[in-house]
Amino acid sequence: MEDERYARAALSRLMEPQDAAGLALVHVAGAVDALRIATGKLAVGPRLEQDMTGVLAEQGSSSWAGMGAALKRWAPRIPDLAPERDLATMQRLGGRMIMPADEFWPAQLSDLGIHEPICLWWRGLEHELPAAAKSVALVGSRDSTSYGAAVTGDLAYSLAQRGFTVISGGAYGIDAHAHRAALAGGSAALPTIAVMAGGVDRFYPSGNDDLLRAVANQGAVIAEVPPGSAPTRYRFLQRNRLIAALAAVTVVVEARWRSGALNTAHHAESLGRAVGAVPGSVHSANSAGCHRLLRDGGAVCVTDAGEIAELASPSGESLAEPKAGVRADHDGLTLEDLILLDALPLRSTSSVEKLCTVAGLSMDSVRAGLGRLGLLGLAASERGGWKRSKDKV
Amino acid sequence: MEDERYARAALSRLMEPQDAAGLALVHVAGAVDALRIATGKLAVGPRLEQDMTGVLAEQGSSSWAGMGAALKRWAPRIPDLAPERDLATMQRLGGRMIMPADEFWPAQLSDLGIHEPICLWWRGLEHELPAAAKSVALVGSRDSTSYGAAVTGDLAYSLAQRGFTVISGGAYGIDAHAHRAALAGGSAALPTIAVMAGGVDRFYPSGNDDLLRAVANQGAVIAEVPPGSAPTRYRFLQRNRLIAALAAVTVVVEARWRSGALNTAHHAESLGRAVGAVPGSVHSANSAGCHRLLRDGGAVCVTDAGEIAELASPSGESLAEPKAGVRADHDGLTLEDLILLDALPLRSTSSVEKLCTVAGLSMDSVRAGLGRLGLLGLAASERGGWKRSKDKV
Repeated sequence: MEDERYARAALSRLMEPQDAAGLALVHVAGAVDALRIATGKLAVGPRLEQDMTGVLAEQGSSSWAGMGAALKRWAPRIPDLAPERDLATMQRLGGRMIMPADEFWPAQLSDLGIHEPICLWWRGLEHELPAAAKSVALVGSRDSTSYGAAVTGDLAYSLAQRGFTVISGGAYGIDAHAHRAALAGGSAALPTIAVMAGGVDRFYPSGNDDLLRAVANQGAVIAEVPPGSAPTRYRFLQRNRLIAALAAVTVVVEARWRSGALNTAHHAESLGRAVGAVPGSVHSANSAGCHRLLRDGGAVCVTDAGEIAELASPSGESLAEPKAGVRADHDGLTLEDLILLDALPLRSTSSVEKLCTVAGLSMDSVRAGLGRLGLLGLAASERGGWKRSKDKV
Repeated sequence: MEDERYARAALSRLMEPQDAAGLALVHVAGAVDALRIATGKLAVGPRLEQDMTGVLAEQGSSSWAGMGAALKRWAPRIPDLAPERDLATMQRLGGRMIMPADEFWPAQLSDLGIHEPICLWWRGLEHELPAAAKSVALVGSRDSTSYGAAVTGDLAYSLAQRGFTVISGGAYGIDAHAHRAALAGGSAALPTIAVMAGGVDRFYPSGNDDLLRAVANQGAVIAEVPPGSAPTRYRFLQRNRLIAALAAVTVVVEARWRSGALNTAHHAESLGRAVGAVPGSVHSANSAGCHRLLRDGGAVCVTDAGEIAELASPSGESLAEPKAGVRADHDGLTLEDLILLDALPLRSTSSVEKLCTVAGLSMDSVRAGLGRLGLLGLAASERGGWKRSKDKV
């Protein structure tokens, strides 16, 4: 088990996230032998390369450059490997490394298939992630508007209050508002998780230092790259797949027409996860990406926490509160009674004969209808005529 | 033909819009005999009642109260019939009555089946309605917000400029903004049409008197009820089906959770017409109805006139302008080149060996990648090392 942990710690430094050949190697040979092969301590047999080709083909990667190219790619980083040091760093930070065999490993990550991360560097509360159905990702623009900030705050607070873990990327804007409000609302054991593109030893961006420290204290800050890793553009894109895979629903609160948040939404879609998009002004460039998701048909329009909870619910049960719709007096009336109600004068009264003409109804219909409307308090008789009931006008 | 015109003018006063038995009677006996039967001048044979039952059953109205009940319903209005007077009134107003046999009859109304109006009272330009595909209904709340007003204005103006006829209901709020902006933008022969719930001789609401007069002068104000008819609640609901049937697309710009505009949208849906909804703030009660339509799955999210034109296009061709998305430098790069670009320092330079370690790539990959990035102007060599190209940072 400790060999496995050292091996995975080392492999996560040797290989970039989503290194297809590397992941196939771990899948076929196991982490311990994969590290020995990747570092040149164990020869590659033809059988192993054949098995890897099979695994990669299953994943849709039919062509790969072969083991030779992969070994060449990993070679330059071999001198830097120091898994003991990385694991010690995590311990010093009050964190640890977790791997698929561990109790706290989030089960929902297995939906990534062989693209499941080799390990996760976890800084924060020692608490297992709630069931997938109780995690929601809230993502969006770094340059959020006041509208986006307000909506994100409402949603994250309310989701945390309902016991959801709010997952986001720790960036400025929507991400920061989501983490902050989830911490405030947090009744859940793990109110929020920030998934980093770089190492969890350095908080990025540095302007969110205090916030991310609070997230680590009351929730968790995690990454698949080891301590000390820089948050590169490539790692941001790969990080997005982790956010999508960890959450039952990914909600884009605000996003421009081109935005990393849309990348997260597409990852969620391809994993078969639900995607929500918050609508906004058609004049706001920061909502254009959300509207694009709604138009493309991949996203559901969500306007409050209840609607998001509904998307997260595996049974699809309705958790949204019924909207406060004003019930009108004429709800539930038959067409004939509605016509009759329209024909009743507000101030003066009208005879039954006159009502027949105005409403275009027979005497029988008018008499029966007046009875029904009277019972509902919508019509009243006065000095031999009929009018609308005063209370209800 | 004149008999037919008189008969339909009379029938439209005798029967409320959507009087199923009345419409079936016209369908089976023709308008002239239908009027004679309805006014007691021609007896009803058992064969006719049987045929009507068949027509009604086809329409899903399997049970009806029978001819006796219908005759009783129509009887009170017989003394008020005066088709010559109604037709003369229209002539005095500079209008006319049109019926399905007329040249200007909007062909798309036949989609209503037997629920096609008996006739239309038409006040305005003597110009046939453009093909269904060139008509768009813009509908929404009477108590529109400044957001709704601005969006409606933009959409109606731009649609009219594209040669669309903008159809609405002549009410305050969204309807009024739609008519007004269509008149301003109108390059179309018939820039806008107001469909009234009451008679076209009295503009309703009276506060829109000037506007509706302008619509009648440059477009058309129409109704299926004859001059002098009051705009009752029942007639508003039936009027909504006309708006939906006349237009290729019904767009709800702003609507509360419960709103007549949603009724129009549901009519459009049941006619197989496209429905669009404009998104807005989740904090605006006036957008709640639009979001409801988006969530129910019946409506497409539309944010500009191009997207609406696309919905109206029978071939579904893309008429929307491509959104102004900023193209990023790294678009189209392979994953390896993206990783390499991330690894290139901005200020100092880096050796090829160092780049191998940082990027986790082989020497061959780094050399080839640097060549490609150099050609794209993204990387530059300087004193034996490599850095990101200054122009592109």
